Amino acid sequence: MPTRSPVLVDLKFDPQTLANALQKAFPDRGSINLADPADAGVDLTEVDYAVLWKPEQALFSRAPNLKVIFSGGAGVDHIMDLAGLPDIPVVRFVDRSLTTQMSEWVVLQCLTHLRQVNAYRKQATGGVWRELAQPEAREVTVGVMGLGVLGLDAVAKLKTMGFDVIGWSRGKKTIDGVMTYDTNNLDGFLRKTDILVGLLPLTPDTVGIYDNSLFAKLRQGGALGKPVFINAGRGKSQNQADLTTALSSGVLGGASLDVFDIEPLPAGDPLWAMDNVVITPHVAAASDVRALFRSVEIQIDRFERGEALEHVVDRATGY
Amino acid sequence: MPTRSPVLVDLKFDPQTLANALQKAFPDRGSINLADPADAGVDLTEVDYAVLWKPEQALFSRAPNLKVIFSGGAGVDHIMDLAGLPDIPVVRFVDRSLTTQMSEWVVLQCLTHLRQVNAYRKQATGGVWRELAQPEAREVTVGVMGLGVLGLDAVAKLKTMGFDVIGWSRGKKTIDGVMTYDTNNLDGFLRKTDILVGLLPLTPDTVGIYDNSLFAKLRQGGALGKPVFINAGRGKSQNQADLTTALSSGVLGGASLDVFDIEPLPAGDPLWAMDNVVITPHVAAASDVRALFRSVEIQIDRFERGEALEHVVDRATGY
Repeated sequence: MPTRSPVLVDLKFDPQTLANALQKAFPDRGSINLADPADAGVDLTEVDYAVLWKPEQALFSRAPNLKVIFSGGAGVDHIMDLAGLPDIPVVRFVDRSLTTQMSEWVVLQCLTHLRQVNAYRKQATGGVWRELAQPEAREVTVGVMGLGVLGLDAVAKLKTMGFDVIGWSRGKKTIDGVMTYDTNNLDGFLRKTDILVGLLPLTPDTVGIYDNSLFAKLRQGGALGKPVFINAGRGKSQNQADLTTALSSGVLGGASLDVFDIEPLPAGDPLWAMDNVVITPHVAAASDVRALFRSVEIQIDRFERGEALEHVVDRATGY
Repeated sequence: MPTRSPVLVDLKFDPQTLANALQKAFPDRGSINLADPADAGVDLTEVDYAVLWKPEQALFSRAPNLKVIFSGGAGVDHIMDLAGLPDIPVVRFVDRSLTTQMSEWVVLQCLTHLRQVNAYRKQATGGVWRELAQPEAREVTVGVMGLGVLGLDAVAKLKTMGFDVIGWSRGKKTIDGVMTYDTNNLDGFLRKTDILVGLLPLTPDTVGIYDNSLFAKLRQGGALGKPVFINAGRGKSQNQADLTTALSSGVLGGASLDVFDIEPLPAGDPLWAMDNVVITPHVAAASDVRALFRSVEIQIDRFERGEALEHVVDRATGY
């Protein structure tokens, strides 16, 4: 064992991809990979750093001297919810590739609903050649909820594509050329929104926030006719029974969903079969494990030089 | 009849939309709408200006004193091909909304292939939750053929989304941060291209340019595995038999097609039924007729003040 503490790695990712990435990661301190049977019983009492994705609560008893915890993804709810979480910094994973992929997915979904991909595909299935009335992007207001790194990048790219874009966050943010709202005026934000894009973290405040009463406030009769809901944040932020009802009753005209209250989405769930609902299996922005380890190394270097860690979770807000 | 020459309108658009738009267009000179039975037999000998979409050759004998011809769309091949076309300026329709819509469609199609929409939709049909290996946009090179107003806007937006973008045009163009090619190095351009976006005008040089030999030069084994062909220019630029073969034999991994050699695409055409081929009925960028008439009015004003017309077709190149 090197004199520097090895990095504890407990990630529920593809084992082979993980093992390959670890061969080159942390060359000056090594790692302990809990997915590797050879490492499973190792003593963790001297470990300083852990990179975690959906860890077990018991881990914190086995590794009582952790100094910093790194999340394996953009979200940290899988860590913050655990009883026994020590009072040490928890660092979110912020990465260019994660951000780029998320904006790809969000722009793709907004354009899919704007350009009536579902309706044209149905026509094509029957060999039908028929032009549909087509609003312009600037006639459609996309409301982005959540204005962190991911939300801000999505806002900028949606604007470039010509959409009218507005933003909402818990605390007021100012974005050049974009009307923004906060907790004091969620209703005003929803009333203007034709396509709602959810990029909120999961916190006690955002559990079930996308529910009947929220969907009912979105703009009806806008350029798309009915509002559309797009969620790439966290599944537990959506009241999924309410969402399913809103889609089948016509309160919502469509949806694109990458996240669900239970994942994988069960095979018989009615959402799979719904017209105008795009479903992807939590792949909007997949963590690249090599990029994750590079980012962890950078933060450990900062920490050991006595510099401030970046992207540390605020315990008061939970993100 | 006002003292100023009325504008001759011969557009094969939706008659009611056209009639509504004409009620407010050209208030100081009026119009003659050949789609209106009341106007069908009117004397056209004194008419100065014509707005045309797929006109009959005979029109030029009926209106022998035209001074300017305006195309009803971005393309002009439907006019330039006609025998009897008088030697007067032909003005292309260039419009913000046309450009924005075209880039929406192009970005949508590039993201559709990048993010494996077809594969995920197939999985969803069976209720299958499975993550697929996902390249990043910057690992994929989009080659845009045609660098006019539409091509340049598409290039800029594809770059914003993170794609590696290169461009080709007949004559060399310089674009900041984008590698460009011309007729001297089409093969070099194709060898680097994972997704080929066709935005070429139809001219004698571009008839059937997308053929077997061109498809065979696109990069095999790039981040998407096989190359993808996207055409929103003109259908007669594609050798459609070659295209169909390239798709079924696996030379191409997918396609998005808005244009076809014969439109509407016949109901039994094999392209309709192909996996990983997106078909839209020539709607990528639909001319807004009100915007068209505003643009024609602006150009007539310039012409009558003795200023140079904008967007005039070069007879040597045909666009």
